[in-house]
Amino acid sequence: MQTAVPSSLDADMLPQPYLLFLGDTVEPSYAKTAFGLRDWARDRCVGEFACDTAQVTTGLPFLSPAQAQQAGARAMVIGVANPGGRIPAAWIPLLIQALESGLDLIGGMHMRLSGIEPLRNAARALGRRLIDVRDPPPHIPVASGAKRTGNRLLTVGTDCALGKKYTALALTRAFRARGIDADFRATGQTGILIAGAGIPMDAVVADFAAGAAETLSPDADAAHWDVIEGQGSLSHPAYAGVSLALLHGSQPDVIVVCHEYGRDRVLGYPHYPLPSIEDTIALALTLGARTNPAIRCAGISVNTAGLDHDTAQRVLAATAERLGLPVADPIRGGDAFTALVDACLARGVR
Amino acid sequence: MQTAVPSSLDADMLPQPYLLFLGDTVEPSYAKTAFGLRDWARDRCVGEFACDTAQVTTGLPFLSPAQAQQAGARAMVIGVANPGGRIPAAWIPLLIQALESGLDLIGGMHMRLSGIEPLRNAARALGRRLIDVRDPPPHIPVASGAKRTGNRLLTVGTDCALGKKYTALALTRAFRARGIDADFRATGQTGILIAGAGIPMDAVVADFAAGAAETLSPDADAAHWDVIEGQGSLSHPAYAGVSLALLHGSQPDVIVVCHEYGRDRVLGYPHYPLPSIEDTIALALTLGARTNPAIRCAGISVNTAGLDHDTAQRVLAATAERLGLPVADPIRGGDAFTALVDACLARGVR
Repeated sequence: MQTAVPSSLDADMLPQPYLLFLGDTVEPSYAKTAFGLRDWARDRCVGEFACDTAQVTTGLPFLSPAQAQQAGARAMVIGVANPGGRIPAAWIPLLIQALESGLDLIGGMHMRLSGIEPLRNAARALGRRLIDVRDPPPHIPVASGAKRTGNRLLTVGTDCALGKKYTALALTRAFRARGIDADFRATGQTGILIAGAGIPMDAVVADFAAGAAETLSPDADAAHWDVIEGQGSLSHPAYAGVSLALLHGSQPDVIVVCHEYGRDRVLGYPHYPLPSIEDTIALALTLGARTNPAIRCAGISVNTAGLDHDTAQRVLAATAERLGLPVADPIRGGDAFTALVDACLARGVR
Repeated sequence: MQTAVPSSLDADMLPQPYLLFLGDTVEPSYAKTAFGLRDWARDRCVGEFACDTAQVTTGLPFLSPAQAQQAGARAMVIGVANPGGRIPAAWIPLLIQALESGLDLIGGMHMRLSGIEPLRNAARALGRRLIDVRDPPPHIPVASGAKRTGNRLLTVGTDCALGKKYTALALTRAFRARGIDADFRATGQTGILIAGAGIPMDAVVADFAAGAAETLSPDADAAHWDVIEGQGSLSHPAYAGVSLALLHGSQPDVIVVCHEYGRDRVLGYPHYPLPSIEDTIALALTLGARTNPAIRCAGISVNTAGLDHDTAQRVLAATAERLGLPVADPIRGGDAFTALVDACLARGVR
């Protein structure tokens, strides 16, 4: 039985297409894996499945595992991530139902699928696989701090779960559309599912976290860009250490700060005010200069999903005016996003 | 066969006294475990043992494992830590020699003793134990960021391996000498060996590192002090993430910045200049204020081991004058150290 796959796997090593599992989630921010797969791997997702009590949907057809298997699905992906990465007992019968319907299970939570005895027993009896994409590769080195060749961009957030992965994916697509050799470098479960490779930064032992970031974006041609998915926030009371290790190891030449319009408290930590965009830029540049003194902020990505079109355009324009930097919502695109891409690729700007 | 012990073990659960093993080390800074045990658990160390090529000594008698066993030793402790925590092949025959002489082996490196097949086989055949004190306890929670009761002090370094643990141990001893209820909280292998409890911060999965720091210093009486052993440095190209997680999770009321006189490059990273003491204070206070806005720097601990007495006193006085803060070498003690202890315990100073 295969219980883990190397993070450097090719995407086609994962059984596809997927059925997306939403658990009993009532908070859309916790379903970023499912939303990410819908938006960036739509052609490989046949539908969604969830507990009766779930209040979140991707908008894809609701299918039972048996229906999904009939529609061609080969695996059910756990598309939600609770704080702490636990798998509630209420999910287990539905996960076993998927195995019984002929689907493998793919998870990326801290609690490993293969560590849950009923799942392990069911998978063994049914000849199905439990695949944990959150297992980091073995033999990650301690960071060397040595400068690497090629260009690197890191998305840096004011918080978790507000668009760092989306922004990195959209920038990679835009770079490639301009003929630039660019790679999206995934640091979390969803990104790894989309890209088919990457390192789950938050699952790496702390001493090797910066080394993992160095490994993720190796030496490259002078014209090449790695666009690295950010994690957490440098001001997060639980995850700032991960964010700092990723910043130091990535050695970005360019950062793009990501924010969600209207969010003023850390998600799940209501007693912690969100840092301002200005403070986030300043902190990231101060800390990032330690391993790349040439680091600069090219602009801001603002998630305006909660706003109508006209309001969003006003917010983006007003934020750009206030900061003196390009500000765009990559999901909306347009001239603002073009200006952000221009600023990322501008040379000699410091 | 016991291959791991919980980090919350009592010190007397470890087989003692120890024989200290120095490997083939030529760099004294890598032998801080051995030096720490000599200085803080001298009555539980019978001697030292090493490869022929070693150039470092603790000054304790050189004993073969058989001689040490005759002298009462019950375990050989690996007293050195290479970068990356590997165990070189050249050590293996000597480690097996210890097992054959009736000693258990205690290690705290990233490479686990129980992961080395020849050791595992020898221990099994001989009925001896391989004990890895670097295994973190299970079920560490994600940090909550919630303020805890009691008082906390964290030692913060300009670099690795320059006196953060010594300083925390000396401050704990001084606090207790004044009748204050104080606990030394160990975050690394040597500290855990000395204290008999603690969490090896650098071995915790990155997402849970701040949570581990919260667990290490729980709610306490209003008059109680936890004196927490720092790790790494906020400016270290490989380990800054660990240091930031420890700072955020510890929520220190007081920091004491630790430095080694004359060190101007990061140990093992000669292309990285050391941050100044001033910059280290400013960075730690800026970042630490996120989880404890009342954080303050009480003073500086300077390792002056390389200086004669008069020069050391001049250096400490000049540094205190420059910074406007108490500056002491805890190993030398004296009035300067008394002033540093006073400043740590001063109330209402911000």
